[in-house]
Amino acid sequence: MLRSCVSLLRTLAVLRGPPGVAPLPAKDPWSPRVNPGPGRRERAAKPGCVRGDPRSFSSEVIHMDLSLPNPSWNEDMRLLFDQFMKKSEDGSWKHLPSYKSKFTQRTEDIKIYFPDAKLMKEKLSQAQLFPRSLEEGLGFEYAMFHNCVEDRTVCIFQGGPYLQGAPGFLHGGAIATMIDATLGTCAVVAVGIAMTASLNISFKRPIPLGSVVVINSQVDKVEGRKLFLSCNIRSVDEKTVYSEATSLFVKLDPKTRLT
Amino acid sequence: MLRSCVSLLRTLAVLRGPPGVAPLPAKDPWSPRVNPGPGRRERAAKPGCVRGDPRSFSSEVIHMDLSLPNPSWNEDMRLLFDQFMKKSEDGSWKHLPSYKSKFTQRTEDIKIYFPDAKLMKEKLSQAQLFPRSLEEGLGFEYAMFHNCVEDRTVCIFQGGPYLQGAPGFLHGGAIATMIDATLGTCAVVAVGIAMTASLNISFKRPIPLGSVVVINSQVDKVEGRKLFLSCNIRSVDEKTVYSEATSLFVKLDPKTRLT
Repeated sequence: MLRSCVSLLRTLAVLRGPPGVAPLPAKDPWSPRVNPGPGRRERAAKPGCVRGDPRSFSSEVIHMDLSLPNPSWNEDMRLLFDQFMKKSEDGSWKHLPSYKSKFTQRTEDIKIYFPDAKLMKEKLSQAQLFPRSLEEGLGFEYAMFHNCVEDRTVCIFQGGPYLQGAPGFLHGGAIATMIDATLGTCAVVAVGIAMTASLNISFKRPIPLGSVVVINSQVDKVEGRKLFLSCNIRSVDEKTVYSEATSLFVKLDPKTRLT
Repeated sequence: MLRSCVSLLRTLAVLRGPPGVAPLPAKDPWSPRVNPGPGRRERAAKPGCVRGDPRSFSSEVIHMDLSLPNPSWNEDMRLLFDQFMKKSEDGSWKHLPSYKSKFTQRTEDIKIYFPDAKLMKEKLSQAQLFPRSLEEGLGFEYAMFHNCVEDRTVCIFQGGPYLQGAPGFLHGGAIATMIDATLGTCAVVAVGIAMTASLNISFKRPIPLGSVVVINSQVDKVEGRKLFLSCNIRSVDEKTVYSEATSLFVKLDPKTRLT
């Protein structure tokens, strides 16, 4: 299941809520980076266009937006990011921040969906969001933007050298991860907490390591708690289609037990 | 596409070829680990049951098998590993080693499939196999075994804290990655170099971080260059089905250009 969607709720919750929580000092390897480097910028979160109820799973989320330009981004990535930020000025698009979230003491928030949260406390203290677990430039560099009118989420993605499958190309699992993350974001923005029930990917061409691609996702249909979404991955010039995918997400009920 | 399959060829090539290449000293962050710790064991490679032509993509592969027990493995992982090693004693099963491969100087071997290898030289020098790119215990801990008679590959997998999606559970992309890697191995062992054309995953239940699951994959049908494979992910006691997947792989032709 695209469990990233749940983590991304934290992102969306931040979009709605007041920003300003400073990053904590990095005391151990599990802590998030606090020296973002010369290319990293902190931006104030703005109210989003979330229709669901994307409440945060944690009261102590680390607010270090990792979806902002950093020195590892190449020119294509920066240009696309700037283009979408410009589109966001009139409110038609929204930039969605992304965090290497860390769960600390309070697990109250997650008990609704995770009744065994007490047992997970130790795990959560070490856990990191998978697509953000590799260091800057080595893994998944990405930023997402959502268009609420069209129910579309776009992800600009640059895959680093630690995502290799065949020599010089992205691993299929890395591609699936970004597809999952993008579709999940699109679903969560639309209806709130939802999880992937199925994911069908057609791999058409290999994606070279270090290149930038654009993932376009959209909600095709909603039937009760079911959301049908699709996406494609294209080159920056839109001429090459690398992959296509369809998926089914299910909106979670607050009474749903995940374990 | 499940490009892991190509990387896994290196594994299989080692199974067939003579072992004994010592790990290189770790001079930079890109180098593989050379201090495997008390739980890491080096095993001599044995002749495998590979029917394809799984030639290595590099003449200078680092031979550090990462599919062997290490201190991060929990009891379930160790027990399962030992069970499959025991099954391997009569030759019906084969343990498949796995490497955080590093490409160094020679790219001759990969020119057959990657004509632009020259341009990729820099990328390859930094690249790491995606499922092996996180440090010991934090990401993908896994070992695979293949049964040549039944065309089946089994992967025992323990997901670390950096693979999180929803709090306390594996990210859907991490699950997809291991499915892709296992199916890819099964395909490559059967016919040699092959790549994923499509991957369809049904997520049935969330997988808790740190738990051990078993991925059972098999070749269902072969039609010319097409291979149809399927797999499921179950708990160690086999009572819980976490995910099911089907896939289509295509055997590569030596004349196939990937770019």
